[in-house]
Amino acid sequence: MTPTPVDLLIEARYIIPVEPRDTTLEHHAIAIRNGRIEALLPIEQARNRFAATETVSLPDHILTPGLVNLHCHAAMSLMRGLADDLPLMRWLQEAIWPAEARHASPAFVRDGSLLAGAEMLRGGITTCNDMYFFPQATAEAFDRLGLRAVLGITVIEFPSQYASDADDYLAKGLATREAWRDDPLIHFALAPHAPYTVSDRSFERIGTLAEELELPIHIHIHETSDEIEASLREHGKRPIQRLDELGLLGPNLIGVHAVHLDKGDIERLARQGCTIAHCPVSNMKLASGSAPIKALLDAGLAVGLGSDGAASNNRLDLWREMHHASLLAKLTSQDASAVPAHEALRMATLHGARALGLEATIGSLLPGKAADLCAMRIDAPDTLPLYEAASHLIYVLGRHAVSDVWINGQPRLRDGELLQISNTELLSIARLWQNKLRQ
Amino acid sequence: MTPTPVDLLIEARYIIPVEPRDTTLEHHAIAIRNGRIEALLPIEQARNRFAATETVSLPDHILTPGLVNLHCHAAMSLMRGLADDLPLMRWLQEAIWPAEARHASPAFVRDGSLLAGAEMLRGGITTCNDMYFFPQATAEAFDRLGLRAVLGITVIEFPSQYASDADDYLAKGLATREAWRDDPLIHFALAPHAPYTVSDRSFERIGTLAEELELPIHIHIHETSDEIEASLREHGKRPIQRLDELGLLGPNLIGVHAVHLDKGDIERLARQGCTIAHCPVSNMKLASGSAPIKALLDAGLAVGLGSDGAASNNRLDLWREMHHASLLAKLTSQDASAVPAHEALRMATLHGARALGLEATIGSLLPGKAADLCAMRIDAPDTLPLYEAASHLIYVLGRHAVSDVWINGQPRLRDGELLQISNTELLSIARLWQNKLRQ
Repeated sequence: MTPTPVDLLIEARYIIPVEPRDTTLEHHAIAIRNGRIEALLPIEQARNRFAATETVSLPDHILTPGLVNLHCHAAMSLMRGLADDLPLMRWLQEAIWPAEARHASPAFVRDGSLLAGAEMLRGGITTCNDMYFFPQATAEAFDRLGLRAVLGITVIEFPSQYASDADDYLAKGLATREAWRDDPLIHFALAPHAPYTVSDRSFERIGTLAEELELPIHIHIHETSDEIEASLREHGKRPIQRLDELGLLGPNLIGVHAVHLDKGDIERLARQGCTIAHCPVSNMKLASGSAPIKALLDAGLAVGLGSDGAASNNRLDLWREMHHASLLAKLTSQDASAVPAHEALRMATLHGARALGLEATIGSLLPGKAADLCAMRIDAPDTLPLYEAASHLIYVLGRHAVSDVWINGQPRLRDGELLQISNTELLSIARLWQNKLRQ
Repeated sequence: MTPTPVDLLIEARYIIPVEPRDTTLEHHAIAIRNGRIEALLPIEQARNRFAATETVSLPDHILTPGLVNLHCHAAMSLMRGLADDLPLMRWLQEAIWPAEARHASPAFVRDGSLLAGAEMLRGGITTCNDMYFFPQATAEAFDRLGLRAVLGITVIEFPSQYASDADDYLAKGLATREAWRDDPLIHFALAPHAPYTVSDRSFERIGTLAEELELPIHIHIHETSDEIEASLREHGKRPIQRLDELGLLGPNLIGVHAVHLDKGDIERLARQGCTIAHCPVSNMKLASGSAPIKALLDAGLAVGLGSDGAASNNRLDLWREMHHASLLAKLTSQDASAVPAHEALRMATLHGARALGLEATIGSLLPGKAADLCAMRIDAPDTLPLYEAASHLIYVLGRHAVSDVWINGQPRLRDGELLQISNTELLSIARLWQNKLRQ
């Protein structure tokens, strides 16, 4: 039998494909053609069946799907650690909003998104669901890095350097989407900031647009108890009920944070097939609370993981979020078996893909999907011995173990080195803005 | 003025000395003579005042005291990830105790302690408070690595490969202590395993010995609610009350975990000046619960941080513990200002030193103390910009940023490379035992 030509064959010690569920393959290979996964099979069989243009050997590695960061404000990397140890509203009003009012610009967003995108790629994140001002600048940055992204068409009622009112935000965001219409990696979502910053009128318009244009809706929701109390005072109902009555809830809605949920909220979210972006580090750091992850998973919701922005985390690191998500779920449910290792990885990959409507393309290593991949080294003495690969991914390794990353079968990180941008350029970007923001 | 001769001058971009409290020094130097800190002063002044045999420049680094791991079972590194996602008693009874019964030996403990000690040094830990069988083997391993340690004279009522009964454990442990009597780095503590595994009679003997020999007492306490319920059934009192009445509580008592505490427990611990070893990752992973850290700190107790053993963590990483301790305290106290960055570092250094009775020697960078130091790199693009050094230590950097470590002014890690043991030897140790334990 003549071997089938493929572009790339990656042979790995362990592969965790996420689908089928809870599976760890040893000594398997992935064959890739035209950026897509052709097959996943034992190394010896792969060598017989395929003739690869390039073969990559990962003998001391675990290969997983690339990670999906389901909630980020990439450009805020420039405000990493600008203010800590403050609750959400003080942090926003005293530190973040004034800095944004002073500095946010296309250059700020492009540079911040370059720094953030590089950090994410280096840590195995291949898809980022982002929400910020000037999405055109983020698109340019992510396009340069070759990062897959869903960019928010942000809507907020107050004016900024970027836009004057809700209609203006929508018009500018939709124009940006139009400009990137045919790009294979850059997608868009409608991103009303939060129930407390967006009017009923704007929500109705967003609901209509989401349906017409088949876009996800990306929104902060039930992050703090204050938000719920304010909604009860102003609207006589909890934010989730309000959104439900405005027709916003559905399988295309990604609710970010979802910390304070009562039984009725969870039922509404489950009934409408919504998805959740869980951001454990940000929620703990701002003392917002802990989302009821086990209850949400038990109710059948897809729960993905988000880093939130670097200003409230202070790292864009989905491996760290997985560790926190697993431990926090065990703690709050008083069940050491809650969110076991495979489940944490599923949240950071397949659930995120499903939330973005991209589960046919990414989130697992099924043949036919895009070859978005992350390889983790397992040969550092301070991470050995190893008895179970999935356990190591969540409880032992961290983003520093990431060695190689591919998106659509194209290399983005090779043996720890980014291919699209140099450290020198990243350092000069970080130092430039550090000096500006310090003033 | 003639410059004063010193052995080593370390010049750093930032130094966080822990004492004075909440202090960050920029462009300062530490002068070291005979293993002790001679002075801490601005770089220019240091160059005028001292003539150093060696000068080390750390221009892109934060220098801190070496970390104190206040609770570890070093040899259990060989069981890293052997069993996950199980609650404490099932984890012990189904996985850990059977493996220990089969494998624990002086060779197991020496090899496991070498692997663990290397992991700790590489991650900036310079002092380890350990509890395990065969402390002679751990002493040999830590002595080879040059790690400062307090080794537990473990006492437990059931027989093991190491000893037959409580008296035998005590006799063997005390003999080991005698053998290391004059060692400058290896110290000992009495380590009754836990209230549920040690009898009143043994506790009384331990209390007497602790007083006679002026030793710390290192004990697991109030880790799970089951432990408290069992004590109420068997002794008619909570374990802390029982220990108090047996005369065990005092400034030399290090209570490990201390997860389930009522107001009376906290009052007893505070009144007796006890210290706590908080192990947030282990407590969350085993779903034991969350220790009331803010209440303990508010009551004036010294709360240090411990990694616990690698089998229940699965990493011996005090930088990760600091991150979790800070976030967990914010979450459980609903206060974003709880355990801010400087406080987390204080827990991992000065509080640990105080708990071990070593605060005159280690835990901060006051002149006269031993030069136990940890340097962290701050020039990786995925950790920039930097606005506040202490914030970066806790929320951004991790153990991979550790570049250099000194103990008593002697280098142990230089630019990420361990000086006392090779990676090749560590890898062969890990692989040997991985193969044995897999069978």
